[in-house]
Amino acid sequence: MTKINKNYLNLQGSYLFSTIAKKVNTFSAENPDAKIIRLGIGDVTQALTPTIISSLHQAVDEMKDKSTFKGYAPDLGYDFLRKAIADNDYKLRGCKIEADEIFVSDGAKCDSGNIQEIFSVDNKIAVCDPVYPVYVDSNVMAGRSGTFVEGTGKYSNIIYMPCTKENGFAPQLPTDEVPDIIYLCFPNNPTGATITKSELQKWVDYANEHESVIIYDAAYEAYIRDEDVPHSIYECDNATTCAIELRSFSKNAGFTGVRLGFTVIPKELVRDGQSLHTLWARRHSTKYNGAPYIVQKAGEAVYSEEGKKEIKGLVDYYMRNASYILNGLREAGYEVSGGKNAPYIWLKTPDNMTSWDFFDYLLNTANVVGTPGSGFGPNGEGYFRLTAFGNYEATVEAVDRIKNL
Amino acid sequence: MTKINKNYLNLQGSYLFSTIAKKVNTFSAENPDAKIIRLGIGDVTQALTPTIISSLHQAVDEMKDKSTFKGYAPDLGYDFLRKAIADNDYKLRGCKIEADEIFVSDGAKCDSGNIQEIFSVDNKIAVCDPVYPVYVDSNVMAGRSGTFVEGTGKYSNIIYMPCTKENGFAPQLPTDEVPDIIYLCFPNNPTGATITKSELQKWVDYANEHESVIIYDAAYEAYIRDEDVPHSIYECDNATTCAIELRSFSKNAGFTGVRLGFTVIPKELVRDGQSLHTLWARRHSTKYNGAPYIVQKAGEAVYSEEGKKEIKGLVDYYMRNASYILNGLREAGYEVSGGKNAPYIWLKTPDNMTSWDFFDYLLNTANVVGTPGSGFGPNGEGYFRLTAFGNYEATVEAVDRIKNL
Repeated sequence: MTKINKNYLNLQGSYLFSTIAKKVNTFSAENPDAKIIRLGIGDVTQALTPTIISSLHQAVDEMKDKSTFKGYAPDLGYDFLRKAIADNDYKLRGCKIEADEIFVSDGAKCDSGNIQEIFSVDNKIAVCDPVYPVYVDSNVMAGRSGTFVEGTGKYSNIIYMPCTKENGFAPQLPTDEVPDIIYLCFPNNPTGATITKSELQKWVDYANEHESVIIYDAAYEAYIRDEDVPHSIYECDNATTCAIELRSFSKNAGFTGVRLGFTVIPKELVRDGQSLHTLWARRHSTKYNGAPYIVQKAGEAVYSEEGKKEIKGLVDYYMRNASYILNGLREAGYEVSGGKNAPYIWLKTPDNMTSWDFFDYLLNTANVVGTPGSGFGPNGEGYFRLTAFGNYEATVEAVDRIKNL
Repeated sequence: MTKINKNYLNLQGSYLFSTIAKKVNTFSAENPDAKIIRLGIGDVTQALTPTIISSLHQAVDEMKDKSTFKGYAPDLGYDFLRKAIADNDYKLRGCKIEADEIFVSDGAKCDSGNIQEIFSVDNKIAVCDPVYPVYVDSNVMAGRSGTFVEGTGKYSNIIYMPCTKENGFAPQLPTDEVPDIIYLCFPNNPTGATITKSELQKWVDYANEHESVIIYDAAYEAYIRDEDVPHSIYECDNATTCAIELRSFSKNAGFTGVRLGFTVIPKELVRDGQSLHTLWARRHSTKYNGAPYIVQKAGEAVYSEEGKKEIKGLVDYYMRNASYILNGLREAGYEVSGGKNAPYIWLKTPDNMTSWDFFDYLLNTANVVGTPGSGFGPNGEGYFRLTAFGNYEATVEAVDRIKNL
């Protein structure tokens, strides 16, 4: 008699963005004339750039002739892409990461959900609160979370690191108990907060001292403007002995619908006597079959001279949105943060409204969709996330509508 | 202190095809003039067909304009593709499968590795012996296999169902112990054996009676020629209450490097009081972000009238190879099976050679790469798999070389 994975029953409600989509669909059906502006889910809106389009067409043409056709990709990614990543994202920044330490995948969401598999169920994880839900949910599914404690919004066996106005939305080093695995995401989703290199160095030192592992999600690094904010955790000393880094092509090159990302596991990262690089390579070769050739070629084009210029244009476009939202809401009297080195703006709901009440209020009155902060954890309650990934004109209209409420 | 998933240490050697690749690379480096012909890994060699190429180009062009650009795909797949699958692969064959019971993914390898996650670690699985290694290895990683018993080639907590010459390479219903989860693959990888509808019905009845679940891998259904061989397990009565089906676009449309597959979980499939459809939907929405839009459009084109004709041409091409291998080896005195409703030919090694000895022998003398049967399980020892996925000319040459040994 087949038994199911009962850990799944421990999950709370459905995935945040599915819930939002359902609410918006219901509102839309009831109000067919409402012109809804979506600044909720972190999905990009601008087209792929000319260099990317051209590389996709070229790669498709290679597939039409058997002399240039490509079947199964190498499990861990094509060398041309792994090398482009190592050279541009790491060596140019002085990070000692080699091409064969990079694992190409179909996106950072998949990697951030799957990475926990190579660790024992006995590890205790620490997450920021608020936090990107995938880190928590994938650990719940694996049975690492303990039970959900009603009324607290927390699982009994997870260490929550509060990110609040008081600490500038940056977590403090855990003191009560040492976590085995620490999830960090900077620039942060959802708060848009960043961390300086010297602050991040403290986490690296802590992880090395305690033989913990940091899973560092740098999906938003392209949005960093300030000099003292690191683009990679490997800019810190000795990070190669404690950190795994996750990266994405979704938010810089607009690949949310193209699907490409990568994970870096340095070869010298050893825990429990085992190379984590070897474990992840085994996971990849057993359960994954490589990202599509045409998509990996598009990824390579991101690192061409023209590609880099175009991607900078895309990021600048979204950052203009971020500035407009930040300034507009501030003028309207909202308490806002993020949006300077990140595409997310984190705002305090007015009049002590709950996050979901403010979601409904904004949807009903301004027809603007955002993301309730409480969906990211208990310390997100009373906050709300807006994204800079919309069209500029729509973003301006959304902000103006909110200002005029 | 971070602890690793010790189940990984229970895996035997590296993934079969990685080992083969390393052996071939070594031979190739030492014998740079050898013209190696690869009939080992099941990778296709012929180009994508014109209709597929055209749909890929069109979809790429949609991505260059923000009015037609596509970001995140729906987690479970675009409706246009789910509907095309339901209509063509199921309703046309009289199977009651709806579009919303289909989960689009980046391939059957990923799905067959991931599907075990929704089940408890306490389930006992049954696999054919020989078997596609992913079923076993993904269960070893999850801790469901027990320990590896040296000398037997088996894990202590897995039920192995022998597929031998004596039973026509078709497993018998387990009698000693009832498995909770049964992996079946027809047309079979690696033996190329098939199952009739009436035989498969016995498995469905068995699973329903014992409340087991069948994970039915039908990745090779396009190669079926005989009328009494079912293309889907849902052609059997009451299969929707016991079976999950895995499908691929790799072997019919040549998408090994394009990456597209799907899993079917009927809504009425309930175990342990839970809908498996709901569990898998939750897994998809938490840990996966959809297959690329351009790839899903290519998948839709597979079901167009022109697409169907072209795909039939591809399958016919490979089946001509299969016939040539089958007849050629038979003439050369080999004992062969498979290759009639499947792209795999299963041959008995001559002179009681081990599978790996025959691998080395064939590589060294004929410069032909095949797959050692023992890599698929203990009952594969003394057997060898050749695939029909090569170029016709190369396949003919490989067979002629073997005949002339």
